[in-house]
Amino acid sequence: MKLESLKNYETPIIRSNYFIGNNNLFYKREDLLPFSLGGNKVRIALTYLDDMFKKGCDMIIGYGGVRSNLCRVIANMSSVVNVKCCIIYCIESNDAVKDTYNELITSSCGADIVTCERANVPEVIESTIEKYVHQGFKPYYIYGDKYGKGNESTPVQAYVDVYDEISKFEASNGKKFEYIFIASSTGVTQSGLICGNILNDDSYKKIIGISTARKSSQAEAIIGDNVKNYMDTINLKIDDKSINVIILDDWLLGGYGKYDSSVVGLVRDVINIDGVFLDPVYSGKAFYGMTEYLRKNRICDKNILFVHTGGIVGFFDEIKNIFN
Amino acid sequence: MKLESLKNYETPIIRSNYFIGNNNLFYKREDLLPFSLGGNKVRIALTYLDDMFKKGCDMIIGYGGVRSNLCRVIANMSSVVNVKCCIIYCIESNDAVKDTYNELITSSCGADIVTCERANVPEVIESTIEKYVHQGFKPYYIYGDKYGKGNESTPVQAYVDVYDEISKFEASNGKKFEYIFIASSTGVTQSGLICGNILNDDSYKKIIGISTARKSSQAEAIIGDNVKNYMDTINLKIDDKSINVIILDDWLLGGYGKYDSSVVGLVRDVINIDGVFLDPVYSGKAFYGMTEYLRKNRICDKNILFVHTGGIVGFFDEIKNIFN
Repeated sequence: MKLESLKNYETPIIRSNYFIGNNNLFYKREDLLPFSLGGNKVRIALTYLDDMFKKGCDMIIGYGGVRSNLCRVIANMSSVVNVKCCIIYCIESNDAVKDTYNELITSSCGADIVTCERANVPEVIESTIEKYVHQGFKPYYIYGDKYGKGNESTPVQAYVDVYDEISKFEASNGKKFEYIFIASSTGVTQSGLICGNILNDDSYKKIIGISTARKSSQAEAIIGDNVKNYMDTINLKIDDKSINVIILDDWLLGGYGKYDSSVVGLVRDVINIDGVFLDPVYSGKAFYGMTEYLRKNRICDKNILFVHTGGIVGFFDEIKNIFN
Repeated sequence: MKLESLKNYETPIIRSNYFIGNNNLFYKREDLLPFSLGGNKVRIALTYLDDMFKKGCDMIIGYGGVRSNLCRVIANMSSVVNVKCCIIYCIESNDAVKDTYNELITSSCGADIVTCERANVPEVIESTIEKYVHQGFKPYYIYGDKYGKGNESTPVQAYVDVYDEISKFEASNGKKFEYIFIASSTGVTQSGLICGNILNDDSYKKIIGISTARKSSQAEAIIGDNVKNYMDTINLKIDDKSINVIILDDWLLGGYGKYDSSVVGLVRDVINIDGVFLDPVYSGKAFYGMTEYLRKNRICDKNILFVHTGGIVGFFDEIKNIFN
């Protein structure tokens, strides 16, 4: 497909049957984006490829863990537009023997694969960039410099735009969402939604990230910086106090990639109640955190939007654990 | 989600980059139906559940092979509306040791599972129906009687409606599809499109089924009967000669569930060219047959629609064979 047709693609917002506190729960079905099995990373990868072309680069370097949906989508988009792609996988010790379907699809899209350990990420990124420069390429590293700094605001635009989609839905359905919940890992998606929230002056609306990886303090700092950076790029000065980042780490369940029987049970419940498939590492964990938050805070009679960020590839990675 | 919101859900029609004979190739993305991982069986299952309720029944019995997408969707829809469901799996000898993800999801949706061999299908269907009657249920068997007769026209409506969606797209884009290609197994989807074609008097448009299971002669007879039955239900008398069923069995590749390296190569190509995922047993085999047909018949400069009927569950069943 033409990547152009992916821009401004509107995903549906669909009512859930999941009953909790008499709230009206809806899904924003980002899992239905019509490229590479969908998910929020489709929109985010698009912003990187656009930026790559804008900067006159002719190859792209992505970075992530072996479960990374972003790495898969970047590799697939690169194959579609016939641009060279390299993916640097950071291999954690417990991933050493872990094959993932995302990694398999990424390789099959023709991406060069480089692996490194957490301790030497900057060196590997630097040497990888140099290798391609030496080969005559003009490489684009999605995260900026070798420390992952310098390109924070580029992908944020994707979910500023989605915030507008949500506003459009609200306007045409005479409904206001009081809460938006989302899985938060890199923080880009939540950063975009928070920027949209500020730009639309919708302070009544709470945007709550359920962290799937980081501690709250670290995640809040990153998202706060993302928001400030983005506002700088559009020349908007905002008061730090007007940036309200809520990211909850109560349901990390042992850290990134880990989950327990409560998450698995909920993933099964959501299939049976809504016919909607979540993965236990990102969207399922976030949905679980959302239900716990609503219950503990006795939130009732509200309009609530859960952003379904996809993850069907990860679902199949874990399917035997989900249904055993 | 409310099943009501699935009715009249329009899936997108998206341009392909796949180049063959300078044709303009498009996908009708039925894989993006927002229920139970999508696919044409979502629409078809909806017609059965509607009919079940209309007939005052209170449980549903489905039938198929262990790879059946329809069985998965019926089981999932039943769990969503809280209706008892039983799935009868016909186990072929070569499936005896074959676990499939569709079967796994079907079981997890709480469906009772009954298995039988091809030789005793009618007896097992009859005894299963009797068992539930004895338990006080009023069962609805999707295929009518124990020989699979009597309910042919019910699901056809789903793709009569989709034909109208396609016409709407054509009208608003000033484009006419000269060919529609589709994977044909039970023949229901193709039957619906052919009925839509007749009702819209679009004889210029060829609707070509690529058989994934049956020989042409058998499949043509079944689809011809489906079309006549459907037309009867809407009190339209049509001349037999005006029913033009084209179903090609040149790419059975050894029969249902079988595929070869050409199909696998094409599945990989389509991922790399379009970011679209096909499964090798249904949609990928059909896409392969379509490309071969276009090539052999030197078809050029036409508008062509490939109906992507889904199959992501089957894709993951076969992923290790696809990417090895």
